[in-house]
Amino acid sequence: MNTKTKMALIGLGSMGYGMASSLLRAGYPVYGFDVTTANVERFCNDGGLRGSIEQVLPTVEIAVIVVLNAAQAEAVLFGESGIVQHMKPGTCVISCATMAPSTACDLATRCAQNKIQYLDAPISGGAIKAADGKLSIMASGPAETFLTAQPALDAMAETVFELGDQVGSGSAMKSVNQLLAGVQIASMGEAMTFGIKQGIAAEKIVEVITASAGNSWMFENRAPHVVAGDYTPHSAVDIWLKDLGIVLDIAKTQGFSAPLTAAAMQQFIAASGSGWGQEDDAAVAKVYARNANITLPGDK
Amino acid sequence: MNTKTKMALIGLGSMGYGMASSLLRAGYPVYGFDVTTANVERFCNDGGLRGSIEQVLPTVEIAVIVVLNAAQAEAVLFGESGIVQHMKPGTCVISCATMAPSTACDLATRCAQNKIQYLDAPISGGAIKAADGKLSIMASGPAETFLTAQPALDAMAETVFELGDQVGSGSAMKSVNQLLAGVQIASMGEAMTFGIKQGIAAEKIVEVITASAGNSWMFENRAPHVVAGDYTPHSAVDIWLKDLGIVLDIAKTQGFSAPLTAAAMQQFIAASGSGWGQEDDAAVAKVYARNANITLPGDK
Repeated sequence: MNTKTKMALIGLGSMGYGMASSLLRAGYPVYGFDVTTANVERFCNDGGLRGSIEQVLPTVEIAVIVVLNAAQAEAVLFGESGIVQHMKPGTCVISCATMAPSTACDLATRCAQNKIQYLDAPISGGAIKAADGKLSIMASGPAETFLTAQPALDAMAETVFELGDQVGSGSAMKSVNQLLAGVQIASMGEAMTFGIKQGIAAEKIVEVITASAGNSWMFENRAPHVVAGDYTPHSAVDIWLKDLGIVLDIAKTQGFSAPLTAAAMQQFIAASGSGWGQEDDAAVAKVYARNANITLPGDK
Repeated sequence: MNTKTKMALIGLGSMGYGMASSLLRAGYPVYGFDVTTANVERFCNDGGLRGSIEQVLPTVEIAVIVVLNAAQAEAVLFGESGIVQHMKPGTCVISCATMAPSTACDLATRCAQNKIQYLDAPISGGAIKAADGKLSIMASGPAETFLTAQPALDAMAETVFELGDQVGSGSAMKSVNQLLAGVQIASMGEAMTFGIKQGIAAEKIVEVITASAGNSWMFENRAPHVVAGDYTPHSAVDIWLKDLGIVLDIAKTQGFSAPLTAAAMQQFIAASGSGWGQEDDAAVAKVYARNANITLPGDK
């Protein structure tokens, strides 16, 4: 392994910062970019390298894009100060934002026209796993692209699910995961408030369900936020307007009826419309609580 | 412990048979009753005791009722050949069917009028855990009733969740679990078919999701049935028409809006209406598959 492989990571948010740190820790020279200057300064203090897009991108072999959505990814790649125009032929983009498979295919085609490789590589696992280099990455693309991307994937991920040689399959798999995750956060809210309405203590519900057939990864992770009355955002309500929106767009385009996803989406929209869009996604429980005239832990 | 405590178990179905066997294995004399004579014969061959309701019930200290629904439980307790009329004052009914908390309260009140103790004790865990004496039991009732029931609970359950001294709380907790379990089976069907529609292999979806944040106990347990195309009923579609029906009845009565449960219920009704009511509940995936014009593993 050539530990001198130069890399750039664009998007030093809660996920991207941890991923960039994992790359540094693995011994690579890493340039970090972000619209927020303070994030870049912090990264440089942690050992990250400093430079401009114009100077740096021609020197890197891998650029990891960790932005919020498809529009931001498109801007990072092909906008006025986009990176593709500066990258060397044969170098590789690892694209981590959740987006529709058709959008990923479009971005890959435009990269190919510029002789840039594109790995469709949505991520899963949260900020802590990102910082520990233990993400799950749902990746697809040509074998040679996997080969180019491998040093970065190895440093950032505990598990790389290889979903074939077609760009789009990684994004498709991510959309399946987000469908389930979103439905299960909403069903956590529905079940917690249903139990509280019947007089069961919130912490008792968590104790019983986490040991029973009704359990899910999301229930176990998010229900304790309701018990604590703490809606500090680990992942915000509004993320689900975006991600379930992607699921429902794919579904409509493909003629796929998704009634549970649609129902969950409406609950997140109601939470966002109530002013809780930037709170933790467990705040979807507040919609149910208000509709059923109950108080939740932490309510004044 | 008095290992001579005589017990009766009414309802030797897939759950009840295993529970009766667990009681036998713990050293108790157990009389088994079932509308299907063959089940009783099999139980007697396994060491169970034989007798009539009239002769046996006056001699037992504990009667465990493991029937399908509230109507059957009511008939077993108070029907023409019901057991309560034959039981001694102070003896105990352990009532395991899933039912509305208000129904459990009604049955308990009528038992109390006959000086019979009533433990609200819905079960969770499936036939294998029932046979191994490793069920979860969500129980509520007065402390003295728990004390009377304890020998049987110890023999049948790995975990007894004690949900307080009010009959109804056990059934309420069970309804919360069934809400989640039903929604998660339906969302399993929605997600599997959504992924297949996008061209991902069914077994790949299971591999990735079971290692990701979209996982749930029910996904992990039921999605392999879809991969195998095997709908041999472990738990049938029609069970969910009953159990989510109970959830939605409670919800309506209490003024609780439950949109995900309602959406899941419609998918199970569609599966039942399509003729798949007696198949494994994973067959809810077939509704999605037909609506999206895809074939599932095992389809001709």
